[in-house]
Amino acid sequence: MNHAILLISCPDQKGITAAVTNFVFQHQGNIVHADQHIDEQSNTFFMRIEWSLEGFKLERNDVHPAFSAIAETFKMDWRLSFSDQKLRVAVFVSKHLHCLYDLLYRHKTGQLFCEIPLIISNHPDARTPARDFHIPFFEFHVERANKTGQEQKQKQMLKANKIDLVVLARYHQIFTGQFVDSYPSQIINIHHSFLPAFAGSNPYLQAYQKGVKVIGATSHYVTEGLDEGPIIAQDTVAVSHRDSLEDLKRKGEDLEKLVLSRAVRRHLEQKILCYGNKTVVFD
Amino acid sequence: MNHAILLISCPDQKGITAAVTNFVFQHQGNIVHADQHIDEQSNTFFMRIEWSLEGFKLERNDVHPAFSAIAETFKMDWRLSFSDQKLRVAVFVSKHLHCLYDLLYRHKTGQLFCEIPLIISNHPDARTPARDFHIPFFEFHVERANKTGQEQKQKQMLKANKIDLVVLARYHQIFTGQFVDSYPSQIINIHHSFLPAFAGSNPYLQAYQKGVKVIGATSHYVTEGLDEGPIIAQDTVAVSHRDSLEDLKRKGEDLEKLVLSRAVRRHLEQKILCYGNKTVVFD
Amino acid sequence: MNHAILLISCPDQKGITAAVTNFVFQHQGNIVHADQHIDEQSNTFFMRIEWSLEGFKLERNDVHPAFSAIAETFKMDWRLSFSDQKLRVAVFVSKHLHCLYDLLYRHKTGQLFCEIPLIISNHPDARTPARDFHIPFFEFHVERANKTGQEQKQKQMLKANKIDLVVLARYHQIFTGQFVDSYPSQIINIHHSFLPAFAGSNPYLQAYQKGVKVIGATSHYVTEGLDEGPIIAQDTVAVSHRDSLEDLKRKGEDLEKLVLSRAVRRHLEQKILCYGNKTVVFD
Amino acid sequence: MNHAILLISCPDQKGITAAVTNFVFQHQGNIVHADQHIDEQSNTFFMRIEWSLEGFKLERNDVHPAFSAIAETFKMDWRLSFSDQKLRVAVFVSKHLHCLYDLLYRHKTGQLFCEIPLIISNHPDARTPARDFHIPFFEFHVERANKTGQEQKQKQMLKANKIDLVVLARYHQIFTGQFVDSYPSQIINIHHSFLPAFAGSNPYLQAYQKGVKVIGATSHYVTEGLDEGPIIAQDTVAVSHRDSLEDLKRKGEDLEKLVLSRAVRRHLEQKILCYGNKTVVFD
Repeated sequence: MNHAILLISCPDQKGITAAVTNFVFQHQGNIVHADQHIDEQSNTFFMRIEWSLEGFKLERNDVHPAFSAIAETFKMDWRLSFSDQKLRVAVFVSKHLHCLYDLLYRHKTGQLFCEIPLIISNHPDARTPARDFHIPFFEFHVERANKTGQEQKQKQMLKANKIDLVVLARYHQIFTGQFVDSYPSQIINIHHSFLPAFAGSNPYLQAYQKGVKVIGATSHYVTEGLDEGPIIAQDTVAVSHRDSLEDLKRKGEDLEKLVLSRAVRRHLEQKILCYGNKTVVFD
Repeated sequence: MNHAILLISCPDQKGITAAVTNFVFQHQGNIVHADQHIDEQSNTFFMRIEWSLEGFKLERNDVHPAFSAIAETFKMDWRLSFSDQKLRVAVFVSKHLHCLYDLLYRHKTGQLFCEIPLIISNHPDARTPARDFHIPFFEFHVERANKTGQEQKQKQMLKANKIDLVVLARYHQIFTGQFVDSYPSQIINIHHSFLPAFAGSNPYLQAYQKGVKVIGATSHYVTEGLDEGPIIAQDTVAVSHRDSLEDLKRKGEDLEKLVLSRAVRRHLEQKILCYGNKTVVFD
Repeated sequence: MNHAILLISCPDQKGITAAVTNFVFQHQGNIVHADQHIDEQSNTFFMRIEWSLEGFKLERNDVHPAFSAIAETFKMDWRLSFSDQKLRVAVFVSKHLHCLYDLLYRHKTGQLFCEIPLIISNHPDARTPARDFHIPFFEFHVERANKTGQEQKQKQMLKANKIDLVVLARYHQIFTGQFVDSYPSQIINIHHSFLPAFAGSNPYLQAYQKGVKVIGATSHYVTEGLDEGPIIAQDTVAVSHRDSLEDLKRKGEDLEKLVLSRAVRRHLEQKILCYGNKTVVFD
Repeated sequence: MNHAILLISCPDQKGITAAVTNFVFQHQGNIVHADQHIDEQSNTFFMRIEWSLEGFKLERNDVHPAFSAIAETFKMDWRLSFSDQKLRVAVFVSKHLHCLYDLLYRHKTGQLFCEIPLIISNHPDARTPARDFHIPFFEFHVERANKTGQEQKQKQMLKANKIDLVVLARYHQIFTGQFVDSYPSQIINIHHSFLPAFAGSNPYLQAYQKGVKVIGATSHYVTEGLDEGPIIAQDTVAVSHRDSLEDLKRKGEDLEKLVLSRAVRRHLEQKILCYGNKTVVFD
């Protein structure tokens, strides 16, 4: 059954929820999920509402214009989507393939409702899984001299493929600000530490040397600041002196898969709103 | 700031959320929390809505009558409460005092918003913490012969003290069905296992003998069936062959404290709805 | 670097550790891991000791006979192995392929040090992953009438392939006692619940109907009693009223992968000792 | 039953374990626990061995001199203790009393085997729990001008009371290097974040502003660098956008209690060895 989904944020005031739910009810929609949140510090209202289109009296194309009046009244930032619309996802990866395999298997078995029209890498290693899962694979060898040019070509490829979401499944190249700005809140990265601890490179080595008793993984939207974008999902696992650096990596990889796929899933389900450098994740 | 809270369940249909939120908006209330859930199997709608009474145009005593018309229309089971109303809680305990200490300390430091006018026990051990935290303590020695009579007296005492919630903080006596029926969804128990595994007595010994690698604790509403009422909260912790029976008990006690206080807190905050043998816990 | 590993259990008495470590030292071995445990209820001593063969003065084939005298003195149950010996593993699977994919990917990337010469199924679904990972695949259609015969053929195939360990990665057929007895502590199953809760079929449905707030997965050695063998590994994850039966399955599958691969890894690393219906897992 | 415990670290070489276990066996001791670890980066050997003194042929006072020869041979750093020796612990606390209550309750119920002859604070708030649990309480009002003098007096008081371990249960004063040097690996602190993230003051506010999805607590030995000493124990708990700053504090306090008591317990049980800026925690 197809559903409409509204994601809303605006300054808080009386009557927002009533206005939105009335809108759905007037046109005979049945609300199946509704969740809201108020950030008291900034007095911001956030809402996600999902209703069944069965019996809904507005045509699909008429929902957006019809809702615009309400949105204007409350000065809403808003996004309308439909549950049968598949986002188009490009996966970037380097040499560590565990997250890629995990995403592809979840995609294949219906856990991630999206299209994956391309996998992009700066190394040849992902060619095999791409082939096994029947996804086009493109290798862009990147070095200092050709970096900007390659990024330009990748960007054109994303555009040509109408990509809605870029997932960095352990892609070890840093994008330019220009690239990042083209996909605001549309690039999801997995960082293999519990941010803000151990940002930057080699976080497992950093954790090992620090002697922590818990390691983590963090999935976040990519912004210009390295490993600093809004956090979507995090998780941790216990370690001890018995764990070698190799053990940290192995345990960490299992976390990375869980955390990245959780973040991507939430994004595909239209459950995330960004504000400032934080996220509201309705789950 | 004082808030009104509505807990609602009814058969799902179009327009419920709109009707409820309109009610709040018409009288100029500002919604601060709203959460809903639909159980698809039984087609039941659940809602918790909380709004600020600042600027709300209905007097406190007029809210209930005013909402009744809506409630009737949708055949709602509903409960209205106000955030400044302190529930009155009786704690029952036997010889294991860790949950009692934990509840009393949380109460004292404002984590549990309630009155605790009495502690009841079938043993003298809790007299000291009761005194240290300045709560009246009553000992009811229970044996087979006097069980019904003692329960009768306890019930009178609860009534006389206008008790809204009974918390069994490791109270090792089983109430009669008659007692339980007097407090539907108003008696919270902590069971020291991950139910439904290891119901009944000595769950840590059962877990030890089974050789499980994880132990748990379960907080639930008490119904006539032993350890079978609707589950409110559960949590688990890893154990290994190194853990003796004593270790299981020690680790388990830490879980029990967390799980019981979480359940009591949710109840006091009017966040729990029961349906069938399950709970909706809005958190 | 190649290591020797001894797994020992025997009645506890003075001098066992000294005797074993002296044995290693006399022949100039360097102990790299040593762990022991005493079960106080049964007064049983358990030990795992691993030493480097670099500079060790006994030939590989001479270790077993040389240690036998000590083993006899202390009435040891013992097993000698070498870290470069790859166990030979057969994976059985039905239609849920997540655990299979997970094991194959871990095997391919070196996390599971073993040979996997064959995958066996009662359904055709696993043919594709078997092919992608280049592992021979054999389908044995099983129904009531041919069950014993098919099991007989499977057993011959295991024998012919010198299989050391059978992994049931969601294989939904119950073996006969005869089959199970042929592989004592050599068949590892994943059960998709937190045993002993929800043994038998459809544990996610059982958990959903019970309204638990935590679900689990259990990996155990297979014995004649259904879902009753010694538990090797367990883990749990929180769920709520928001989680549909489908959500429980999805969250549970992630657990199953972690728990099964952990159990298999421990077995391959010779870290598990069984006693009674429990395990000692040295990690 | 009384046990002897040896904690050992030394450069790794062949024969250490054999030498130590022979020593125990020669004098007819029965080993009840033995655990070892090798740090491969620094080639350091760590061991904890515990044996029953029942039937042990050396007098208590003769164990230390008898073992010295072995210790010298292997250039050991070592510490001998006996399980019936209660360490003497001073608890320092400021205004947040949750960890103090938790430690006192665990002490009273036998979970922490130690003496607590004094509680020291820079505020009067802990006077009540100190009195309820019958522990002498001393208030040292500290401000910039009298800081060194007060610390001097505290040090004398610790000396006079033969304190073996100082526990900082949310004590919000920074000790001078001189004080810290007097108690190497004998001051345990609880920091209310997942170090190294959010070191310094107000970690919950830092975490709230960063929008993390997991918060943590860290117990560590105090060294001169603020919040930088060797980590003993850490744990984490999930949070979301729904959690206010107050919620983070409440959830965090539960973690702090668990993590600090775990660290103190491990120290009292002689299970911790420091090396470099890390710990080996035998559990």
